[in-house]
Amino acid sequence: MNKLHYEQRRERLRKVMRQKGISALLVSHAANRFYLSGFELHDPQCNESAGRLVVMADGKDWICTDARYRDAARRLWDEERILLYGADSAGDIGKLLTGLLAGQTGFSGGEGAGRIGFEAESVTLTFYERFADAVGAGNLSRADGMVETLRQIKDADEIRCMEASCRLNHQLMEWLPAVLLPGRDEAAIAWDIEKFFREHGASELAFTSIVGRSQNAALPHYLPSTTEILDTEDLVLVDVGARLQGYCSDQTRTFRISTGGARPAWADAFQRTLDTVREAQARAIAAIRPGVAACDVYQVARRYFEEQGVATAFTHSLGHGVGLETHEGPSLNSRNTAPLQPGMVVTVEPGLYYPEWGGVRWEYMVLVTEDGCRTL
Amino acid sequence: MNKLHYEQRRERLRKVMRQKGISALLVSHAANRFYLSGFELHDPQCNESAGRLVVMADGKDWICTDARYRDAARRLWDEERILLYGADSAGDIGKLLTGLLAGQTGFSGGEGAGRIGFEAESVTLTFYERFADAVGAGNLSRADGMVETLRQIKDADEIRCMEASCRLNHQLMEWLPAVLLPGRDEAAIAWDIEKFFREHGASELAFTSIVGRSQNAALPHYLPSTTEILDTEDLVLVDVGARLQGYCSDQTRTFRISTGGARPAWADAFQRTLDTVREAQARAIAAIRPGVAACDVYQVARRYFEEQGVATAFTHSLGHGVGLETHEGPSLNSRNTAPLQPGMVVTVEPGLYYPEWGGVRWEYMVLVTEDGCRTL
Repeated sequence: MNKLHYEQRRERLRKVMRQKGISALLVSHAANRFYLSGFELHDPQCNESAGRLVVMADGKDWICTDARYRDAARRLWDEERILLYGADSAGDIGKLLTGLLAGQTGFSGGEGAGRIGFEAESVTLTFYERFADAVGAGNLSRADGMVETLRQIKDADEIRCMEASCRLNHQLMEWLPAVLLPGRDEAAIAWDIEKFFREHGASELAFTSIVGRSQNAALPHYLPSTTEILDTEDLVLVDVGARLQGYCSDQTRTFRISTGGARPAWADAFQRTLDTVREAQARAIAAIRPGVAACDVYQVARRYFEEQGVATAFTHSLGHGVGLETHEGPSLNSRNTAPLQPGMVVTVEPGLYYPEWGGVRWEYMVLVTEDGCRTL
Repeated sequence: MNKLHYEQRRERLRKVMRQKGISALLVSHAANRFYLSGFELHDPQCNESAGRLVVMADGKDWICTDARYRDAARRLWDEERILLYGADSAGDIGKLLTGLLAGQTGFSGGEGAGRIGFEAESVTLTFYERFADAVGAGNLSRADGMVETLRQIKDADEIRCMEASCRLNHQLMEWLPAVLLPGRDEAAIAWDIEKFFREHGASELAFTSIVGRSQNAALPHYLPSTTEILDTEDLVLVDVGARLQGYCSDQTRTFRISTGGARPAWADAFQRTLDTVREAQARAIAAIRPGVAACDVYQVARRYFEEQGVATAFTHSLGHGVGLETHEGPSLNSRNTAPLQPGMVVTVEPGLYYPEWGGVRWEYMVLVTEDGCRTL
């Protein structure tokens, strides 16, 4: 992405801001900040911000950050529109905004027009209070989801990045059986996976890898263990992703491992479950096209599991949007009635879990196209 | 750490809660949650919680989480005190607390006694509003820093973990010259460092590694680049840490690389700066003992730099606490007047930066002891 990409995104955002009567938007969520400016995809810790972006309806946008990031900001931004704040970042940004907006019509007390938007789900209570003190609480307007909604629709360059990221994930999955060997432990396999991703261009994992053998495959949140050793007859669920060119991948496979010994007691249940999960996934993907409600795609998988009498073993949503973050909108769950749109990328990851022997999950990434969808 | 460790920590917290008239404390900050319960050190994303802990003055504490983490919670906690919340986590936790406290004297409208503490710096505005609606805003009391203050004083087991974590960092620094070779790029060296840490027991990096050659060493926030290649005569600043046994390390060295060619123009400035930085560090460490104000330790380094006429090149604080998080209290800056106490672990990392040729930073981790301090 180059400067122009980020400017175009801010122009799209400005259109929405004008519709909502917002003169200035304070962008606090890290992925939103990066999406709109290219400035710092990550905060150093969840309780430490790398900086905030101020998008102005008049087109003169600001990066607000601390002295550590001055050089990084300068590489992207005109120095005259970089605010280096001190310990009271909320107060300093508030003062800046009050000054910028002082001359604009409709600001300060006006109804609807000329308000300051902010992300209530991405600021702490403490930050909000200081900020509201500085700008006047009455001038504030909630803008949660405004940037996230834009981010849901990937443009052509983003789709190329996501294709590259997903391609690497496919390569990983093809290579993976070579290291899923009896006698190896889950944590060692997880480290092999991380090295594969990193040594093939990924900047980091997209999320902590899930590598769960046998009954561990039944646990939706599982951390690989050094004491869980692959057996000569075993199953292993692998749910992994990496960040490549900024964008996250996320795929799951469930492998059966066999060295030709006696067929284990769970083998029939595993094969039946695998077939059922993959059929549910195929039906759900076949239902994905612009205009279909996200919850209806979920219901396609759910109904198939109900017909097969296994729906109680399907304990999570069908999938989620993926992009700069592993988990973003839209969610493919039972409640999201929003229609799918071209450019959305969602995971489709049905799973069935049986604490007695394990379970199966299978996950693809799917791009919504103009006339249907395409599995990445 | 075992269950008893976590119980003892919650007992220490309960004493503080009783002093402040807090009947129930909602712990939202991830490292605080883990410190008090062993439950989930990390949230999956900064905008997604893995769960919250409720510490009750009466000793009957709760883990509140979503269905994904049920198994992880069960391994640590009595099932009858695990709340699995739905989409409205703040509302569900609020209802739980209202029920638990309904029978207790002093709750609901009482002055001071029987209030619900929460961390205003670790909840979003949206979470706070839903939570306040559910429990009544008048029953809430801010408890920011209550757990962090306990965490600043490391107990004997934590000190053992930090010694082990710092020892691995020393091993890394001793091994590092073997890979700081002309022709190699910064990003490749950073990946070597990460592999060394991980293959010697670390679970992850404590923070994104800084590997900056030449003028890049002058940038306090710098990301290693594949296009920055070590020269035959060069300098490289390496600021890295890893998590071992749960605890973070953080050390910096600045190396001069030479293959015996012509002495570069910056070599004298480098050596002089290195000597000055190390002397400032030695003086600051010599000043560390219980009862000394954190800002006074900062001033020891600062004053030495002023005497040497280089203080304008010292652009950040002297150090910070380190433990379950890379950045925690106490900060060794110009404003923190709090006295150091035995059991605190702080970094001491003076640096001098010169955009023309680079800079030098040198960082140790220092444990405050009963009668002084010890460099880890």
